[in-house]
Amino acid sequence: MGLGFHIEAKRGAGRAGRLTTAHGEIATPVFMPVGTLATVKGVPQETLEELGVEILLSNTYHLYLRPGVEHVRRLGGLHEFMSWPRAILTDSGGFQVFSLSRLRKVREEGVEFQSHLDGSSHFLSPESATEAQMALGADIIMAFDECTEHPATRERARASMEMTLRWARRCAGHFARSRPLGEQTQIARDARKDKSRTTRDSNASYQAMFGIVQGGTYPELRRESAERTVKTGFDGYAIGGLSVGEPRELTREMVAATTPHLPPEKPRYLMGVGTPEEIVYYAQMGIDMMDCVLPTRAARHGLLFTSEGKISIKNACYAGDEEPLDAACGCRVCRRYSRAYLRHLYASNEVLATVLNTVHNLAHYLDTMRSVRHSIELGEFTNSLSGAPRT
Amino acid sequence: MGLGFHIEAKRGAGRAGRLTTAHGEIATPVFMPVGTLATVKGVPQETLEELGVEILLSNTYHLYLRPGVEHVRRLGGLHEFMSWPRAILTDSGGFQVFSLSRLRKVREEGVEFQSHLDGSSHFLSPESATEAQMALGADIIMAFDECTEHPATRERARASMEMTLRWARRCAGHFARSRPLGEQTQIARDARKDKSRTTRDSNASYQAMFGIVQGGTYPELRRESAERTVKTGFDGYAIGGLSVGEPRELTREMVAATTPHLPPEKPRYLMGVGTPEEIVYYAQMGIDMMDCVLPTRAARHGLLFTSEGKISIKNACYAGDEEPLDAACGCRVCRRYSRAYLRHLYASNEVLATVLNTVHNLAHYLDTMRSVRHSIELGEFTNSLSGAPRT
Repeated sequence: MGLGFHIEAKRGAGRAGRLTTAHGEIATPVFMPVGTLATVKGVPQETLEELGVEILLSNTYHLYLRPGVEHVRRLGGLHEFMSWPRAILTDSGGFQVFSLSRLRKVREEGVEFQSHLDGSSHFLSPESATEAQMALGADIIMAFDECTEHPATRERARASMEMTLRWARRCAGHFARSRPLGEQTQIARDARKDKSRTTRDSNASYQAMFGIVQGGTYPELRRESAERTVKTGFDGYAIGGLSVGEPRELTREMVAATTPHLPPEKPRYLMGVGTPEEIVYYAQMGIDMMDCVLPTRAARHGLLFTSEGKISIKNACYAGDEEPLDAACGCRVCRRYSRAYLRHLYASNEVLATVLNTVHNLAHYLDTMRSVRHSIELGEFTNSLSGAPRT
Repeated sequence: MGLGFHIEAKRGAGRAGRLTTAHGEIATPVFMPVGTLATVKGVPQETLEELGVEILLSNTYHLYLRPGVEHVRRLGGLHEFMSWPRAILTDSGGFQVFSLSRLRKVREEGVEFQSHLDGSSHFLSPESATEAQMALGADIIMAFDECTEHPATRERARASMEMTLRWARRCAGHFARSRPLGEQTQIARDARKDKSRTTRDSNASYQAMFGIVQGGTYPELRRESAERTVKTGFDGYAIGGLSVGEPRELTREMVAATTPHLPPEKPRYLMGVGTPEEIVYYAQMGIDMMDCVLPTRAARHGLLFTSEGKISIKNACYAGDEEPLDAACGCRVCRRYSRAYLRHLYASNEVLATVLNTVHNLAHYLDTMRSVRHSIELGEFTNSLSGAPRT
């Protein structure tokens, strides 16, 4: 059983859809909370379920270093390991190799790097990143790409894009070869160059792989990257290399330059985005999936998202504030605790600050996405696409 | 409405009772989790409710320094501030002044000390510690005592005990004078020396005060302290100054030397105790209430209590262990997560380790106390009193 995707309603470019995985259905557009080390920091899985989280993102790079992908595989894969029966997406590790690791050397074959934890040497290639993700057993795995830095010249962006395209073909080929034969899709078979009938002990039968579009901040490269990635053939398509420091207007321009060249019947995933305003904006542009550390990381720094804007709960003005964090929010934090209490927890460096702040921020993101989906289903008009998102 | 206490069943010295407070009933013997800064570190109040916690302990010394008792009072008191509708007991701050603060000077009037947080100077007296606890609004507040250090000579222990007895009378007197007149009990009126009809804006109408027995490790001093504290008259009696480094056998001996001299119809609280084995032992000796940081603090260090003994979850032997932490435990942690996952969270320094470990340890303590209560209700014979508790 692979990935299913079905569009249920459209409004403008926006789509309300349903992703079907072996670990449940996901209403799209969807925001995926980040659970780096097989945990969304501070939040028990039962609370994530209560929040309505249908798919989590976990980071291959981090799990590869600790506790190790083979370790997770022996324990039944990521779902079993972390006791999360719903869907999981793993990134390829590429982004973290480029952003976190030390002394990395990028070659055609792959990337040599040193762990940010202990300086130990490692090597990730399109094949080994695919293997790692197959071992982790996420429902959706990502092709290993080079996340082009910003700024990059056109020549550098093209060269990097070409490398990502070559790596994408290697990922798709390796994934196809490693799948149990009966489960290989036509797309995967097309992508396969090596016809050897490798049969492996693999839990990949339900897994799907997404390709990643790169191309820096050059619209024509984005278009070319999209078209050629689609030619390789994947179960869904991600837009990568954005939200890496470029102006937000450029991000929007790149997304607009890419989506028309992605097949409408496949899910589209914009990586690493964004603020509450941004996730609304991109959902209305036809993006189906997003992830970002912002709600969870900001929560740990006392930055909370509410229906009336951002709040820095550490501010002294909240010390005596008996109101709920967000009177319009129905989450368990807003139903029970005052701003004064949340401020006290944060100011006292209490663990419960992380727990409650994260629960609320995730609730805000998930509610935001649910209301976008609802507005698409209703065919309501909004003017959010007429200008820049509020930030 | 004050404190009610009713004994429902006895077995040997053990009592199964019911404490009635303005914030709910408490089945005794009871273990009170410690919520130092108006939070049990890492555990949301709704989870404490789910665990069946009926009474929490909070620390006056810590709340006095941060966020300040007047601050908490303005926000409606501790129950309202932390959104905890069930019962709360506050200690007097005495123990922390003696164990945490710097440069303390003990005088007849009270204790001058410097904050362990910022070195600022403070003064706590029997009267101001009582005021602080009245402002915090806990259901049960404690007389301000001097926690005699161990070891102490008989002379030192007697002098310290005499100071605690004088302070106890001042606390009881101040508490009685500060109560709304209609609510003053006979006991409190007896204790009152100053007959001035002070009426104050106070939320103390539902509050009860416990006296604290001291006397070091000298049985005859313990007896004298108990008798004279009872003469002052309180709503319940605590045994203090134990579990401060003395051998466990001596602790048991002191408890045995004290309880016969406490009125059987009043609740008895043994402060700062103990291991799961110890709480069983002392409940069987007729102690009704206990508190200890052990289950919560140990949890944060990866030390977990199970039906088969202690587990240090950091040990590598648990890395691949797919079993629940304690197959005999029905808590949400044991129902869902494996030892391997808990070990991973701890080894990765994840916040969720604190959350889940604390939930389990509290579940273990509360279950332990519930089963002791049950055995007292059933009048079952156990041989736990025939020897030392297992440690």
